[in-house]
Amino acid sequence: MSIQKVTVAGGGTLGSQIAYQTAYTGKTVIVYDINDGALSAAKTRINDLDAAYQQDMHATQADIDETHSRLTYTSDPHSAFGDVDLVIEAIPEVPAIKTNFYELISGIADARTIFASNSSTYLPSQFADKTGRPSQFANLHFANQIWKHNTAEIMGHAGTDAAVITALTTFARDIAMVPIVVRKEQPGYVLNSLLTPFLENAAYLWGEDIADPQTVDKTWMIDGGAPMGPFATIDLVGLRTFLNITKDRQGDNPAFKNTLAKVQQMIDDGKLGLESGKGFYTYPDPAYQQKDFLA
Amino acid sequence: MSIQKVTVAGGGTLGSQIAYQTAYTGKTVIVYDINDGALSAAKTRINDLDAAYQQDMHATQADIDETHSRLTYTSDPHSAFGDVDLVIEAIPEVPAIKTNFYELISGIADARTIFASNSSTYLPSQFADKTGRPSQFANLHFANQIWKHNTAEIMGHAGTDAAVITALTTFARDIAMVPIVVRKEQPGYVLNSLLTPFLENAAYLWGEDIADPQTVDKTWMIDGGAPMGPFATIDLVGLRTFLNITKDRQGDNPAFKNTLAKVQQMIDDGKLGLESGKGFYTYPDPAYQQKDFLA
Repeated sequence: MSIQKVTVAGGGTLGSQIAYQTAYTGKTVIVYDINDGALSAAKTRINDLDAAYQQDMHATQADIDETHSRLTYTSDPHSAFGDVDLVIEAIPEVPAIKTNFYELISGIADARTIFASNSSTYLPSQFADKTGRPSQFANLHFANQIWKHNTAEIMGHAGTDAAVITALTTFARDIAMVPIVVRKEQPGYVLNSLLTPFLENAAYLWGEDIADPQTVDKTWMIDGGAPMGPFATIDLVGLRTFLNITKDRQGDNPAFKNTLAKVQQMIDDGKLGLESGKGFYTYPDPAYQQKDFLA
Repeated sequence: MSIQKVTVAGGGTLGSQIAYQTAYTGKTVIVYDINDGALSAAKTRINDLDAAYQQDMHATQADIDETHSRLTYTSDPHSAFGDVDLVIEAIPEVPAIKTNFYELISGIADARTIFASNSSTYLPSQFADKTGRPSQFANLHFANQIWKHNTAEIMGHAGTDAAVITALTTFARDIAMVPIVVRKEQPGYVLNSLLTPFLENAAYLWGEDIADPQTVDKTWMIDGGAPMGPFATIDLVGLRTFLNITKDRQGDNPAFKNTLAKVQQMIDDGKLGLESGKGFYTYPDPAYQQKDFLA
């Protein structure tokens, strides 16, 4: 079960990074999206990654040229899914869209093909039956800025074949990821199981006016030696995403009423985090990256 | 309310560090403990800190000599508490012991003297009335290895005078701490409000066999850029302390039954963390500090 030929379905932020990294490390990659417009946007996102790989990974022009030579683009399902070792699904987090997608490709893909979902939200057992090959289905979850945050969380459902987990683990190493094997279905995998409540607890300290964001971040940076604190991380995640996740988890918890209202107010004020240039910090050159921040 | 003369009551691990750091940064410090035996142990702990300051703070022999010249030791309450600007209480976390202590010193201390508790466990409102000067009482909480983890969490109760918070903030800066002002009483201050549930959530992933400790630590180190993960931190805190805290918070929560049993088993096996040379890692040179840990 050697994985060499990969289709990445969905060329959004993560899909384009997964496709780039997979091609950069030597695999043959097909990028699939639903129509020419989506595919053209995916291509732009992928081309835009050249600069990041040059800067962060010291990629040469030759590396970049080779990466692009291994990438092809199609919106034709038969070309995309008919003859590959692995499909990585990175399409919208909408159950009906995912169900339709798996039903579509289950009728096209070769018997050998492993299906993997990059879903942050859904467990593999929720779609296993739709794939037509539940034993060859697992989640394979990447972090944003995959080339730097190079974890690949691998999580099967109860019916995933152990050999498939092994193949995905090998594949993750092949594409320069550190494989993080999650042995049982766990919402949030490892990273978000830790990160989500951590960010929530930090936001609560601010929401209840117990401590201000910079004070909280300083504490975590000094005592934990971390390069950034939780509020800098919320800025990076984006306040809208953070609000959605926190509403989902704490929307009915009266202890979080003030916190959620304050996050909403920031969003209403256009403070979306890094993406809007202001959030708990202003960008570029946020205060927490200044030399005197911990002085 | 300039704080120059300080008594540190209790020469245990934290008390000795607080006394050393305060003297090292130029203040006059009296170390108080209950009898000659305790005092002698405190003196040994304080002398043992010379090496850490030489190594981590590049302290010269002159710096060290000056530090010791500013330190005196007594078990006489009148000498210790009669004429100082600040008393920092770092005595055992036993309510009856703390109550007796505050009742004792309230009758001895000068009217100007501020009382501050280093308690990790108790809120200032719980002892304010025992101090005889509630408006001059707050918590002032230090992290272990105070010279490196240089946060001083300052937390008053509702009746603490704002000028006292200001004086403690200035004092914290004077002794090279970053003041972390906690505006309302909050169990765990800022640091442990974040750290305690973070470590618990990590332990749960292992307790339920969702992921192994090294995998969890790798995830946090790679995706958060942190120098160590939660299991390395539990080793540092000590498994016995971690068990006590987690039992306190989650002892009745069936979701933590397996996790608590597994921590207990490690303790029974002598795996206490850094202090016993083995825990989730073996010491010195734990795996997470090796170059290939994240490879």
